[in-house]
Amino acid sequence: MPSCGWLLLLALSLATLTGNAVGAVAYERTERNCSLSPPYLPSTAVNTTLQLQELRERMLHENISAYIIPGTDAHLSEYIAPRDARMAFMSGFTGSAGTAVVTQTKAALWTDSRYWVQAERQMDCNWELERDVSISNVAEWLISEVPAGGEIGFDPFLFSLKTQEDYGINLESSNRSLKSVPDNLVDPLWTDRPPIPSEKLQRLPDRVIQRSWQMKVDHIRNQIRDNPYEPTALLLSALDETAWLFNMRGSDIPYNPFFYSYTLLTMDQIWLFLHMDRVTDELKVYLNASCKGPLCVQLKSYDSVREHLKWYVAQPGVKVWIGTEYTNYALYELITPEEKLMTSTYSPVLITKAVKDDTEQRILRDAHVRDAVAVIQLLMWLEKAVPEGKETELTAADYVNTCRGKQKDSKGPSFETISASGPNAALAHYSPTAETNRKLTVDEMYLVDSGGQYLDGTTDITRTVHWGTPTAMQKEAFTRVLMGNIEISRTIFPSGTRGVNMEMLGRRALWEVGLNYGHGTGHGVGNYFGVHEWPVGFQSNNIPFRTGMFTSIEPGYYKENDFGIRIEDVAVVVPVNTKYGHNFLTFDTVSLVPYDRKLIDTSILSSEQLQWLNKYYETIRKLVGPELDRQKLHAEKDWMLKHTESLVESGSSASVCSSSLTLLALAVALLHNVL
Amino acid sequence: MPSCGWLLLLALSLATLTGNAVGAVAYERTERNCSLSPPYLPSTAVNTTLQLQELRERMLHENISAYIIPGTDAHLSEYIAPRDARMAFMSGFTGSAGTAVVTQTKAALWTDSRYWVQAERQMDCNWELERDVSISNVAEWLISEVPAGGEIGFDPFLFSLKTQEDYGINLESSNRSLKSVPDNLVDPLWTDRPPIPSEKLQRLPDRVIQRSWQMKVDHIRNQIRDNPYEPTALLLSALDETAWLFNMRGSDIPYNPFFYSYTLLTMDQIWLFLHMDRVTDELKVYLNASCKGPLCVQLKSYDSVREHLKWYVAQPGVKVWIGTEYTNYALYELITPEEKLMTSTYSPVLITKAVKDDTEQRILRDAHVRDAVAVIQLLMWLEKAVPEGKETELTAADYVNTCRGKQKDSKGPSFETISASGPNAALAHYSPTAETNRKLTVDEMYLVDSGGQYLDGTTDITRTVHWGTPTAMQKEAFTRVLMGNIEISRTIFPSGTRGVNMEMLGRRALWEVGLNYGHGTGHGVGNYFGVHEWPVGFQSNNIPFRTGMFTSIEPGYYKENDFGIRIEDVAVVVPVNTKYGHNFLTFDTVSLVPYDRKLIDTSILSSEQLQWLNKYYETIRKLVGPELDRQKLHAEKDWMLKHTESLVESGSSASVCSSSLTLLALAVALLHNVL
Repeated sequence: MPSCGWLLLLALSLATLTGNAVGAVAYERTERNCSLSPPYLPSTAVNTTLQLQELRERMLHENISAYIIPGTDAHLSEYIAPRDARMAFMSGFTGSAGTAVVTQTKAALWTDSRYWVQAERQMDCNWELERDVSISNVAEWLISEVPAGGEIGFDPFLFSLKTQEDYGINLESSNRSLKSVPDNLVDPLWTDRPPIPSEKLQRLPDRVIQRSWQMKVDHIRNQIRDNPYEPTALLLSALDETAWLFNMRGSDIPYNPFFYSYTLLTMDQIWLFLHMDRVTDELKVYLNASCKGPLCVQLKSYDSVREHLKWYVAQPGVKVWIGTEYTNYALYELITPEEKLMTSTYSPVLITKAVKDDTEQRILRDAHVRDAVAVIQLLMWLEKAVPEGKETELTAADYVNTCRGKQKDSKGPSFETISASGPNAALAHYSPTAETNRKLTVDEMYLVDSGGQYLDGTTDITRTVHWGTPTAMQKEAFTRVLMGNIEISRTIFPSGTRGVNMEMLGRRALWEVGLNYGHGTGHGVGNYFGVHEWPVGFQSNNIPFRTGMFTSIEPGYYKENDFGIRIEDVAVVVPVNTKYGHNFLTFDTVSLVPYDRKLIDTSILSSEQLQWLNKYYETIRKLVGPELDRQKLHAEKDWMLKHTESLVESGSSASVCSSSLTLLALAVALLHNVL
Repeated sequence: MPSCGWLLLLALSLATLTGNAVGAVAYERTERNCSLSPPYLPSTAVNTTLQLQELRERMLHENISAYIIPGTDAHLSEYIAPRDARMAFMSGFTGSAGTAVVTQTKAALWTDSRYWVQAERQMDCNWELERDVSISNVAEWLISEVPAGGEIGFDPFLFSLKTQEDYGINLESSNRSLKSVPDNLVDPLWTDRPPIPSEKLQRLPDRVIQRSWQMKVDHIRNQIRDNPYEPTALLLSALDETAWLFNMRGSDIPYNPFFYSYTLLTMDQIWLFLHMDRVTDELKVYLNASCKGPLCVQLKSYDSVREHLKWYVAQPGVKVWIGTEYTNYALYELITPEEKLMTSTYSPVLITKAVKDDTEQRILRDAHVRDAVAVIQLLMWLEKAVPEGKETELTAADYVNTCRGKQKDSKGPSFETISASGPNAALAHYSPTAETNRKLTVDEMYLVDSGGQYLDGTTDITRTVHWGTPTAMQKEAFTRVLMGNIEISRTIFPSGTRGVNMEMLGRRALWEVGLNYGHGTGHGVGNYFGVHEWPVGFQSNNIPFRTGMFTSIEPGYYKENDFGIRIEDVAVVVPVNTKYGHNFLTFDTVSLVPYDRKLIDTSILSSEQLQWLNKYYETIRKLVGPELDRQKLHAEKDWMLKHTESLVESGSSASVCSSSLTLLALAVALLHNVL
């Protein structure tokens, strides 16, 4: 699944894509029209007059001219819990990315092209929609709407240190300033705000763990001790940091097994901030929560993190280490004076977590074998069902989710399944809804990007198929996307090479004929964590590759209003022997589902690429075959064997050559007969 | 020539490389030994006691505990004029990269591994040599040597804004602070400091110019006007900025046709700061120097730049635009308050200059044709002369410099020729000296990296050759370096792709067998300018590629104590037609000298690479052939034709195939005879 942060947005709207939509009612106007008098509002629009009025009153009280409402939570999470959907509560817009700003007279929402139609359907005419989501654009709007000398309020829990700095730079010398307002202004108005989840927190079973939390704490403490800037404590703010450190999981965020938490780790104490009523007695024993020694976890209330951090920072000689990407401004601003602060882009927990240990590698590979079974079940079923004309994007998404659900240790999907036919697939992030749902037919290409959470691992795989006759262009584009996937997968590189410096290999075969794609090429994946696991991947802010990191590899091609192709696999970085050197690495693909043979033009593959492909198919047979047997999925096994048959070079000099050899044999035979 | 800034240094010292050195006197200790009593100093060491004593007195006077002496000039030039060699005057060390720091009791010099031996030969025991050249390491040393509360002086003309910031960050919360000392403390002690050059400044002849300076000024003013931050003036500090804007050249800096200058350009005035006695009457007319209108150049004294900038900044409503990479801190610190400053990494002059106009492209290509003649002359001569046993690295360097000097519009070499045999070539930046000079033999590989300045262009080319029998490893490494050069050269990419994201193509064939190289892959080159022309190239701080940019492409491989390979060509970015897309680019190689055929193993080249190579050789024949004819260099023409013969695939299926076809023909012939 391409991650949102790095999508170069395809300027293509859903509105053009309803031709074949199953559930769309023709000709009904589904978007608001605020230029009519009275304005036209569809039934999906939310009346926001009341909450805006209440918010404005509170803004007057705080003496701020504008208030910024980001669409994230206090941990800068990519996915948020319903109780953090403040932007949606205020504006009606429920998309996963956006920023809202309210002044006394105006309200504006910034979101990217994926969501423009949705925003026009959900917002009433209190809101204007802004299409350039850069912070500089928001700041420009603020400068034009806020009077000189005015203050712009923000909730410091919802801004990263970096976001705050970016706004600061853009407002510099404009005579408008930011004001941190620690008590959120939306929450008091939101009377039916969803409560804090009450589910008990879980520890991971021993069978999926190599390093106990005590070992991890020791390891991280060594890094604190060895750091030349001499920090005395590490503050963890991202939800996966605390979940990783204590081998714990929760279910506060959809698709992400996280729970609300912070950790402050010093050399002799561990403070874990969470909702204490969610901690069972068993978990207290597990965490050694009744003592105060260096390996005792002192449980503190989630809401007391600021108070405790403040107290800690007031001690003489302390220095708190934070990662700048995920620490919210509310905690950062407490760490003063400057010499008590130490920053790095990522915390040592995120850096350590990026390299999987032997157990994590083994079980993550295992999870991918079972995951492959589910995807093979889907593809086999669709091959039979689609020509009968009854299946849709939504039924296909349900089918694969159900298949995954039956696999051992399944914990549900790892993100909302992207099941997209024909032109819908040209939107890289499309997920079907009742309005946009298309029937699947033998006349359109179909893209399915899905993944599962398992107790032992998180998966993410995309396959693109055609059940009829693809056009020459579709076949060429598919083959070139596949070439990109293979070129990255098979490349050999020195340990420590950055993904951003290799990702062009995913694009090069497309570039050769003037094609390209507008999203990134891959992101980290881990063991029962968020499907976009930072900081591994192919972006400029990802860390260099080392043995034991897992990443997706996912080139694509999208033809507006026509079709979309993406081929996504997860691969693990492994050492490789080379003729002369040491410390060289390559990828080993752990997603194990064959590609659509019909769409592969072997004549443009290099012999190295073909060889890679055939070896990959052998691996699928070797690893998935026994699992299909074990699950008694005989038809699926036959389907898999059929789709992983060795591919042969076509139209190459080798075949010309072999035919000339045949002629030679014939000639010799003739000669023999004559003599 | 690999540029210094981005060399990942090869930790290899010259000391080990004197085995075959022509001029080395065996067993004489050439490096100082300060641990002996009394210390051993070679004759090359400089006694610095006096100047250190004088500097320390001045430091007491200024109340500073340490003084930093960088090895650059007020324009942050890569090459400096003799009068700016303050670091060399103080320390004795004449290498091109380094930083000296003096306290009341110590003196230390930081330089990279290229220069360690040289520093040990040139410095006396007043100086310690520090090997980690990072600013953080210098700062660490300063913190340990300067007492708490102490001030560290620096000449703000010799620090870029960025250098000052980096020191600031590293000294943060250490209770040691930086102090800008605008009057340099070394200059008054340096009684025999070389004077300001007196050569008159030159304007370029019309035949090498498409855009007059007035057109350039208009163009840059449009960019000032269109900038949303609304600057009112542009300050140019880098020497090539002013030289480019006015189509002028000088000879103040070795190898670089620059002259000391600054420019302040506003919407209605042009202030050019230079040494006025070097401006001829003719040049005054050319510059329209007698008026004050928007297209009149007002000449100001070079030394008055601070005073004039201060005056300008004091005017209400002004905002000065500077590039942060090349503006010195002495000018930056005058631009206050903050809202009068606007920064970008590179000035619009550097960005505009990066794309060559039609005339610049044409004449730069022309210069490369004549330059190829000189290099071909060298290679042909060496092929004959080396087996006779009389030639050395130095005589070869002289020869190519002489050949270039005879070409039309020659203005001398564009950098010190790297002429390196056997193990000397394993040092990427080696230039021969009397001590290290090796005899050229048929038993060693030889690398020559050289370039010329011509009125119409700057060249830079590296060829590696072997006059005897290369080892299998040398042949493989050479071929893989060549594959890297070809893979970059032939790649097709969208306009705006960054070099850093493609440069791994230069390494990939090496990586495959566990090899690599420790320097960057290419730098910009221009029209009679510095040989490392920023900001074009393959580094992370280079700008994206656009049509009309020229860059070197120079992968290599270096085997310690054994041999070195580099294959460097200059190429221009050109548009390319693709099957489906628009705005795609590729490279067109403008260096036109064949590679050593003996070192190419065609069996590991792909057919696309072989095809590229043969097409390149056709281009050499087409472009250099007529020039060799014109210059009546008949032997050279024959040599060139021999070395550009088409290469054929060896050991590939094609040749197997063709032999089977031969057999077939034979069989048919036999058959025919029998019948």
